[in-house]
Amino acid sequence: MGNIKVALCQLNFTVGDILGNTEKIIKAIEKGEKEECNFICFPELSITGYPPEDLLLRRKFIEDNLNALQKIRKNVKNSIVIVGFVNKKNNKVYNSAGIIYKGEIIGIYNKKILPNYGVFDEKRYFSKGREIGFFEINGIKFGVVICEDIWHKHGPYKKQIKNGAIYIFVLNASPYHYKKIKERERIIKEISLKYNIFLFYTNLVGGQDELLFDGQSLAVNNKGQVIKKGKPFEEEILIFSSEDKPIEIEEVNESEEIYKGLICGLRDYVYKNNFKKVVIGLSGGIDSALTATIAVDALGKENVIGIFMPSRFSSPQSYLDAKKLAKNLGIEFKIISIEKIFNSYLETLKDIFQDRPFDITEENIQARIRGNILMALSNKFGYLVLTTGNKSEMSVGYATLYGDMAGGFAVIKDLYKTMVYKIAKWRNSISPVIPENIFIKEPTAELKENQKDTDTLPPYEVLDSILKEYIENDKSYEEIVNIGFDENLIKKVLKMVDRNEYKRRQSPPGIKITPKAFGKDRRMPIINKYLKWNI
Amino acid sequence: MGNIKVALCQLNFTVGDILGNTEKIIKAIEKGEKEECNFICFPELSITGYPPEDLLLRRKFIEDNLNALQKIRKNVKNSIVIVGFVNKKNNKVYNSAGIIYKGEIIGIYNKKILPNYGVFDEKRYFSKGREIGFFEINGIKFGVVICEDIWHKHGPYKKQIKNGAIYIFVLNASPYHYKKIKERERIIKEISLKYNIFLFYTNLVGGQDELLFDGQSLAVNNKGQVIKKGKPFEEEILIFSSEDKPIEIEEVNESEEIYKGLICGLRDYVYKNNFKKVVIGLSGGIDSALTATIAVDALGKENVIGIFMPSRFSSPQSYLDAKKLAKNLGIEFKIISIEKIFNSYLETLKDIFQDRPFDITEENIQARIRGNILMALSNKFGYLVLTTGNKSEMSVGYATLYGDMAGGFAVIKDLYKTMVYKIAKWRNSISPVIPENIFIKEPTAELKENQKDTDTLPPYEVLDSILKEYIENDKSYEEIVNIGFDENLIKKVLKMVDRNEYKRRQSPPGIKITPKAFGKDRRMPIINKYLKWNI
Repeated sequence: MGNIKVALCQLNFTVGDILGNTEKIIKAIEKGEKEECNFICFPELSITGYPPEDLLLRRKFIEDNLNALQKIRKNVKNSIVIVGFVNKKNNKVYNSAGIIYKGEIIGIYNKKILPNYGVFDEKRYFSKGREIGFFEINGIKFGVVICEDIWHKHGPYKKQIKNGAIYIFVLNASPYHYKKIKERERIIKEISLKYNIFLFYTNLVGGQDELLFDGQSLAVNNKGQVIKKGKPFEEEILIFSSEDKPIEIEEVNESEEIYKGLICGLRDYVYKNNFKKVVIGLSGGIDSALTATIAVDALGKENVIGIFMPSRFSSPQSYLDAKKLAKNLGIEFKIISIEKIFNSYLETLKDIFQDRPFDITEENIQARIRGNILMALSNKFGYLVLTTGNKSEMSVGYATLYGDMAGGFAVIKDLYKTMVYKIAKWRNSISPVIPENIFIKEPTAELKENQKDTDTLPPYEVLDSILKEYIENDKSYEEIVNIGFDENLIKKVLKMVDRNEYKRRQSPPGIKITPKAFGKDRRMPIINKYLKWNI
Repeated sequence: MGNIKVALCQLNFTVGDILGNTEKIIKAIEKGEKEECNFICFPELSITGYPPEDLLLRRKFIEDNLNALQKIRKNVKNSIVIVGFVNKKNNKVYNSAGIIYKGEIIGIYNKKILPNYGVFDEKRYFSKGREIGFFEINGIKFGVVICEDIWHKHGPYKKQIKNGAIYIFVLNASPYHYKKIKERERIIKEISLKYNIFLFYTNLVGGQDELLFDGQSLAVNNKGQVIKKGKPFEEEILIFSSEDKPIEIEEVNESEEIYKGLICGLRDYVYKNNFKKVVIGLSGGIDSALTATIAVDALGKENVIGIFMPSRFSSPQSYLDAKKLAKNLGIEFKIISIEKIFNSYLETLKDIFQDRPFDITEENIQARIRGNILMALSNKFGYLVLTTGNKSEMSVGYATLYGDMAGGFAVIKDLYKTMVYKIAKWRNSISPVIPENIFIKEPTAELKENQKDTDTLPPYEVLDSILKEYIENDKSYEEIVNIGFDENLIKKVLKMVDRNEYKRRQSPPGIKITPKAFGKDRRMPIINKYLKWNI
């Protein structure tokens, strides 16, 4: 058997950009062949990008992807290339890997286990493959599986190994959430050890709307030892030999990993949608501070504009904090008072509101003026507006629809408030850009006199714990009561979550970081009377 | 065999309202038993409402539904009740029908063919049933299938018939789109004729977020003749005997059917979300005129408030048309000028905009002021804001995000502009509430001097034809060229459609009327470079 040389191409592909993706694949093949690799492996659906969603319903789209495969084929000389593409046979569509050698497609593996849970809709598009996925070229016996295939005890790799496969190549587009990498590594090592095989796992990298792919591709030898590992959230072509010595894996700090993910997700959303600059409303609070910091780290300080929009309710301290943040980040900082506009609304609506007291209406008007101003800057100057809401707020609807929720991308939408502080603290440990006072002061929306978040919400430590049980663990009211929170508090929180589904439905996409994010990961009806009679 | 008496309970259930749905079911059983029916049949997933979406991931939710089934069971005396519920067995979840007789669940059928296309996600939740679904009680041989099961040539009914079933009961939650009813009737008659069996089809009725269920339940005898048919969009318990004489089916006017559907969808969205009154921005144009008319027909004139919000660009004629419409409808009509507020924005933004010319920015500011005003009325008075955009606009993004797109429900979101005129014309044929001038004048957004829709868009007849090919038929650019439209025009339109996916993602839900609506029916990536290199 002996030694084989392998290239795992952990690359950032773009959905729909069949031409660009194909060029990237061909370049990587050239590099791998120059290095005399025996195998050059790509992620799942490299040609189309992942997930192509309903583009897969277009006949022409699949045709274009098949033509691209033919183009790639012609560029393969002495290596064995394994590349993800969309296969079509007898009117059935498959999520597939093409095995190419000496300019010919010598084999195809169609994915067997199709995920259709969480963020996945693969059964909407793909038929289940029936082939074994075992190949032998030049005496090298290997198997090919795709993503979900490897996560199942009775996945197709078992038959491949029975057939004599010593190397298993895994093509992946494995959406990121924190802590997932450990689970992934555990499974790969387990299979390797159990069957005494080499496992080469190539993962996609980059952001696609709300999804994030972390790379961190992995090669383990037949003793379950890691011999190569890709970086998180960076493109990389990993070249190694199957007999390379085991390496030490550095433990990645969780906050660092998440932070890198946020940078990657934001950068890709901005660039892949052809934006260059972003504008952010800076309130002087922690959410906008972290969002702006991520933006600067992702796009460069010259591409981030911070706008402070004070009203009669803004404290001088908020101004100082926002200004200091902008200075620390080195970004353009503008002040646009909303007072004049706010007054014009109050005047205009005076007759119709008569003598009704100041309430949530006037609070929302302010937030929506700010939203309108940011969108005006977006329209006039071509900036993308970033929203700054966190997951705790999105959960309970503590945000103004069309107000602070107005914008193209919600960077920290999937971070609970407690996580926001944690990640911001970690970022400050690299260089202290977020003013210390922003960490210390009590959170407030400053939409009325002396307002504090805790007027409306329980302390974030408590709130976040309840939200996690309800949203991520799908626990019922009774089950959360049993965990030990106050019954009335749980009722209040759960009702807020359900009642605000309509807001989330109109919120901009944001980066999935937790095991269950809002968006395609959690599909809840708006009309939903379950809680009403249940608690 | 002889005669059997049947009740098909075409009822309006609410997602999550297990208690309310159960009560409704028990009442219908009482009625059916009082009438001495042999069979009392309900729609698919009657106990939970359809579709329950991710509520199905909660253990407790399924438990509650199983307990409800037990409660229903106890209320069944001498009839055979067939009711849709969520079954759970060996940790697998099924979309099922319970067959109940004399207080006992004497059989269960688990749905075999699970739709996972279009608006459907059933493979996300349910396992595939394996049972035949054939039953014999008191010498009556019958089969039970659920919705999608009946649409497939090799559906489970074939085995049931082989086993001797003479009656097939079909439980449905069949989402409405126009022209679907004909297809449905054709298939039911065909199966009946081919196998010489009775087919009793019970369909859900009502609105659930973007979905609409039209009722129109159907009973055909063993000669493929219709012996009973339910009304469109109304609750009804259809009671009949299997030997009843065939009836003449009245052809329902398509515009009338759609109009009734819009009323039903809006009414359910408003009431099931606990609203009472709605507010609509009346521009004097056809879209807001039709929306207001539907709202009055759905909710009563006392529950609809029309707001005219003029600016310097509003023509006197728009005011006259809006006012006349409101008068014809008998609704409250208020005028709120946006001029003062608009000026305050221009003043506030003057420095930052410097001398840049008036462009889309200033247009959008106006639309967003109107959105903010309507939302303020919503907040202050508890109204639901209805948006008035049509499918043509939603497709090409000819609408302002957070402006005219701001609101809770988009009633005519799935009507192309040409359909809007057609439906409005039909409604006026009943009573001429929409002023004739609104039909005659050229569409305009009135956001700048002398603006017309055709400044930006092709004539709606052309636009709508291209959109239909691209959106509903998933045709490629080349295929649309072959149909015969101008190449540059197609390019322009297709690019607009793709580029505005981000707006649609943040738009309120609206009622699905066409075979492919925006929303869960069409899942397109925002980051999508396909067109970029393809045309």
